Amino acid sequence: MPVTGEAIRLSRLFSEGKNAVVVAVDHGLYFGPLPGMLSLPEVINRVAKADAILMAPGSPTHCQSVFSKRGAPAMIVRLNWGSNYAAMWKYQHSHSVPMISVADAVAQGADLVISSLSLKNPDEAEDAHNVEVFSACVAQARALGIPLIGEVYPTGGDDHAPEELQDEIFVGCRIIAELGADLVKTFYTGKRFNEICAATPVPVLALGAKKLPKESDALKLAAVSIEAGARGIVYGRNVIQAKDPDRLLDALKEVVKDHMAPDKVAAKYKLD
Amino acid sequence: MPVTGEAIRLSRLFSEGKNAVVVAVDHGLYFGPLPGMLSLPEVINRVAKADAILMAPGSPTHCQSVFSKRGAPAMIVRLNWGSNYAAMWKYQHSHSVPMISVADAVAQGADLVISSLSLKNPDEAEDAHNVEVFSACVAQARALGIPLIGEVYPTGGDDHAPEELQDEIFVGCRIIAELGADLVKTFYTGKRFNEICAATPVPVLALGAKKLPKESDALKLAAVSIEAGARGIVYGRNVIQAKDPDRLLDALKEVVKDHMAPDKVAAKYKLD
Amino acid sequence: MPVTGEAIRLSRLFSEGKNAVVVAVDHGLYFGPLPGMLSLPEVINRVAKADAILMAPGSPTHCQSVFSKRGAPAMIVRLNWGSNYAAMWKYQHSHSVPMISVADAVAQGADLVISSLSLKNPDEAEDAHNVEVFSACVAQARALGIPLIGEVYPTGGDDHAPEELQDEIFVGCRIIAELGADLVKTFYTGKRFNEICAATPVPVLALGAKKLPKESDALKLAAVSIEAGARGIVYGRNVIQAKDPDRLLDALKEVVKDHMAPDKVAAKYKLD
Amino acid sequence: MPVTGEAIRLSRLFSEGKNAVVVAVDHGLYFGPLPGMLSLPEVINRVAKADAILMAPGSPTHCQSVFSKRGAPAMIVRLNWGSNYAAMWKYQHSHSVPMISVADAVAQGADLVISSLSLKNPDEAEDAHNVEVFSACVAQARALGIPLIGEVYPTGGDDHAPEELQDEIFVGCRIIAELGADLVKTFYTGKRFNEICAATPVPVLALGAKKLPKESDALKLAAVSIEAGARGIVYGRNVIQAKDPDRLLDALKEVVKDHMAPDKVAAKYKLD
Amino acid sequence: MPVTGEAIRLSRLFSEGKNAVVVAVDHGLYFGPLPGMLSLPEVINRVAKADAILMAPGSPTHCQSVFSKRGAPAMIVRLNWGSNYAAMWKYQHSHSVPMISVADAVAQGADLVISSLSLKNPDEAEDAHNVEVFSACVAQARALGIPLIGEVYPTGGDDHAPEELQDEIFVGCRIIAELGADLVKTFYTGKRFNEICAATPVPVLALGAKKLPKESDALKLAAVSIEAGARGIVYGRNVIQAKDPDRLLDALKEVVKDHMAPDKVAAKYKLD
Repeated sequence: MPVTGEAIRLSRLFSEGKNAVVVAVDHGLYFGPLPGMLSLPEVINRVAKADAILMAPGSPTHCQSVFSKRGAPAMIVRLNWGSNYAAMWKYQHSHSVPMISVADAVAQGADLVISSLSLKNPDEAEDAHNVEVFSACVAQARALGIPLIGEVYPTGGDDHAPEELQDEIFVGCRIIAELGADLVKTFYTGKRFNEICAATPVPVLALGAKKLPKESDALKLAAVSIEAGARGIVYGRNVIQAKDPDRLLDALKEVVKDHMAPDKVAAKYKLD
Repeated sequence: MPVTGEAIRLSRLFSEGKNAVVVAVDHGLYFGPLPGMLSLPEVINRVAKADAILMAPGSPTHCQSVFSKRGAPAMIVRLNWGSNYAAMWKYQHSHSVPMISVADAVAQGADLVISSLSLKNPDEAEDAHNVEVFSACVAQARALGIPLIGEVYPTGGDDHAPEELQDEIFVGCRIIAELGADLVKTFYTGKRFNEICAATPVPVLALGAKKLPKESDALKLAAVSIEAGARGIVYGRNVIQAKDPDRLLDALKEVVKDHMAPDKVAAKYKLD
Repeated sequence: MPVTGEAIRLSRLFSEGKNAVVVAVDHGLYFGPLPGMLSLPEVINRVAKADAILMAPGSPTHCQSVFSKRGAPAMIVRLNWGSNYAAMWKYQHSHSVPMISVADAVAQGADLVISSLSLKNPDEAEDAHNVEVFSACVAQARALGIPLIGEVYPTGGDDHAPEELQDEIFVGCRIIAELGADLVKTFYTGKRFNEICAATPVPVLALGAKKLPKESDALKLAAVSIEAGARGIVYGRNVIQAKDPDRLLDALKEVVKDHMAPDKVAAKYKLD
Repeated sequence: MPVTGEAIRLSRLFSEGKNAVVVAVDHGLYFGPLPGMLSLPEVINRVAKADAILMAPGSPTHCQSVFSKRGAPAMIVRLNWGSNYAAMWKYQHSHSVPMISVADAVAQGADLVISSLSLKNPDEAEDAHNVEVFSACVAQARALGIPLIGEVYPTGGDDHAPEELQDEIFVGCRIIAELGADLVKTFYTGKRFNEICAATPVPVLALGAKKLPKESDALKLAAVSIEAGARGIVYGRNVIQAKDPDRLLDALKEVVKDHMAPDKVAAKYKLD
Repeated sequence: MPVTGEAIRLSRLFSEGKNAVVVAVDHGLYFGPLPGMLSLPEVINRVAKADAILMAPGSPTHCQSVFSKRGAPAMIVRLNWGSNYAAMWKYQHSHSVPMISVADAVAQGADLVISSLSLKNPDEAEDAHNVEVFSACVAQARALGIPLIGEVYPTGGDDHAPEELQDEIFVGCRIIAELGADLVKTFYTGKRFNEICAATPVPVLALGAKKLPKESDALKLAAVSIEAGARGIVYGRNVIQAKDPDRLLDALKEVVKDHMAPDKVAAKYKLD
């Protein structure tokens, strides 16, 4: 059983027992300013309907207004930096380092925290080091009753062959949960994603990854993720670079929380 | 400016810039089970409309459901115990001791914390000791970005002569703010309460103290407190022992947040 | 919610959801060697059927065999010493001091720990100090997932007038639970003991106190305690000084766990 | 002499002086979800007859019920992660890192802990680092009276030539015991395993490693291990992937605790 | 079970299982320089045949030679100072304070340490404080594996009426053992001293107290102490102020270790 504070904060994310729609705006940590994300405070105000917003450790201070009312989105702060996320530089390893402690993240306003774990690196020692960095996050988060999302992000991201990605994530989600993650964030892997959700003893959140061509695709991805057993989604570019993020969030909530059919929802909200 | 997390948590309490209605259910720490408060979980479910609920450090674990959804009341955990609160035993001193650290309160789910400071004791050393206990709370709360309410509760409570109470609180609120309280909770002192609010550099919350004869009295007390400059109220018995706490909370919110006239609100909600 | 380890250890005490029969053998801390308790190791071997055995911090090293098999009684170690227990010296105050940390108690084999809290002392400062000592135990126990029994033992013990004892314990049990006790141990107060159990948000264990004239009286006391809502009993002299502690424990279990009528059980076990 | 708490916890594992049957369900830390282990809580309920269950640090919170009654299996929590266990990735080194402290493991419910030590690595510095990680576990475990199992797992696992495996384990068991392990867990090495048991000054537990073709083979392996001097076995897949883990555990206990002949036991329990 | 280092050090005191003859030379802490003890280094060299020598914390640095060879007496360092020992000033209370930590005592060469506990003081708070001071010694001594002698020295010393002294020591020895003393040092109380030894779960050492008129009396006191169940004696003035301490020690060893009749031993050694 999680301690009281952690249980409360988890229940706020999955409010009334429903699935969660999370928006990630921490891309700047790796990609710098993506199109549509030049001004972080502006971006964030457009996604205020999310259940939670995932940010870099330096961002809350610039974006506090969106979190500053009762019922505001929960703040999720990223704790570690891993070189494998620097995809644009074709990085091939995954060196994980701590950026901020859980206590300092709480001081920035965090309601939840996230830390990634990337294994099967070119050098075994990287795996071991990454496990150590992740485990330290678990210990800190437990001591403060702050839920920790474990992000399973294979080195090389989603450029793996589908079977390989499935295998790595199937293994990785279980590893990160047995290390103490309270939730897992990972890629939707396709038809066998349900096996991942079934074998992971904590709630799984499916990430959106690259911008999909159409906004209705984003709804469909959400629908298949939830159908496969995910307890929510974590979308970045697919929401932020949408024509109207606010409207897309409304649509996503109908799919994710109320299990509405994505095509009907797309039609209702006039999404292409 | 307070650090980001603290600013966010304060803004959630005063959501949309409005004043706050807080309910205190920590009487058990001093009085044991008061009438109407035998079952803490039941009581708390009846005050779920409050902006925040103030609890003893051992209570969250028994009452977590009320805090477990998005937009739920904020949890305020009391950090210290002071013998002057044991009014039923006619205690005349004020020995303050720590009950729980801010980190442990966060682990129990706290969004804010409260610590009291009682000065002008029979023995000067008590004053000094109490300042030390309070200051340690400030340091802990700051490090975690958790807003700290400083409670100004003169030794002897509200049994002082009115002028004396005014003087002690006028002085005490400024002292506690200068020690680092982010908000102040204290007695409404009457006609000159506005001087207290004016001279206190942080928001003041007025406490309800003993059960008032009529529920409309509770509305009036709230109205004069707000009018004098208080940014909210902290009611215990006046809400919990009401015939219908839920209805009284609705009425109090109209008075406290929307500055409605208490007699009209009493009539609207059919309160005696 | 308690953390996993604490929940597990509590469930072992109330195994299969049944009430608990605990034997206390820590009298030596205050009274020295009572009749029938000259040799602690011998005494303890006679009460191996208890669900748990409560000991002084120096005793486990002399009595480890009774705890050394699967399914053995849980070990409860007392953490503090309070002068009010020194009843034979007619002590009138209650100065509580720590004897052993929770970590050191675990190193001695503790599965649970106990700390007492005595209030309403001749000097208020004693109350405050005792709250501080107790609260430190709560923090230590939580950090290690060790359940903490809070003992409510009014200064003066059970020599109070019945109404006064009822009042003090009614108040004291709520205070200690709001401070963070996971269970409460206290006196059976008579006909209104049910009010205490109802107003205490954690399980209550009734203590046996002085040796009762007849062993069937001990069964009756257990029966009325459980009937009033206690989740178990903590007996010392009434078990240890029994003619056949082993047989009495069997009888007590039928009353406490299976709610059998005490007179029938007394007859079955041939207890006077 | 171990301190009291450690001696008690060891005696509970070897209850009534008999050998121990331990089931390991921590494979997820390296292999992800193995067949037959998709749902950890389900798996664990099928092995409730074990004397102890070995888990990853994140698993107790999902599996607490099996430990939650008097006489339940002891919980063993793994403290470190070593890259050499990631056998499916053909890892050739052994980088050991801490996952959880002994205090945090106790908070999760641990009765015992385990840490591995793999030596003779491609880089000497790895050996030294691993000794440091293991020694830190010894210090923490001693301070809390929690028995520490030292796992001797040569880099490369049991893919060594038999003589080489014998030599490495013969050496490794003595090293780990001299570093302070209270028990040793290692591979059964064949005919000369008795030399290992004889030269290791603490009890040796033989691990089952890969799934054996027939369940009767698992009985035979247990029998030869015990005959050679092992004080128990630690089986994972051989129990979990059995047709009826409960029945196999009954059979294993007859072999391990009562020294019954494995073929007779296989016949009695109708195991192939 | 005590931890290894403590067990080893205890066994060295009771070498070959025999009782111990200890000489105390810490009188200066209370009485200043007693006759025959003007030069501490000289005194100590005359009692080198003792099994152990009990000293004040500042003395080892002046007396190190006697401890500086293999098989030398064990060094016992006193940890606390209690005002009740200042008998020459007719002190009536017992305020116990720490003088030296166990770690610092070890740095001075201590093999064992001693701390006293005096209860039943004019003010209850003194009792509680003394328990706290003693308990802190227990925790320190356990952490370092140093055996701790608990000295039971009623406030007022041996000026009590015999029955009262018997009662206080009977109670006190059990209390100090349940607090965690590894041995007890106390007064020989007369004919019922055997009851004290029987009810104390750790070895009892009988102290010699005031100088007896004749050296043969010292032998007789040792004999009756051992006969009653003491595991050794702690003599100060009776040895130091003897005509030939060395010879008296030889005689005492025959009585204490070999149970020889004191009159025969007195005759053999020509003691008056």
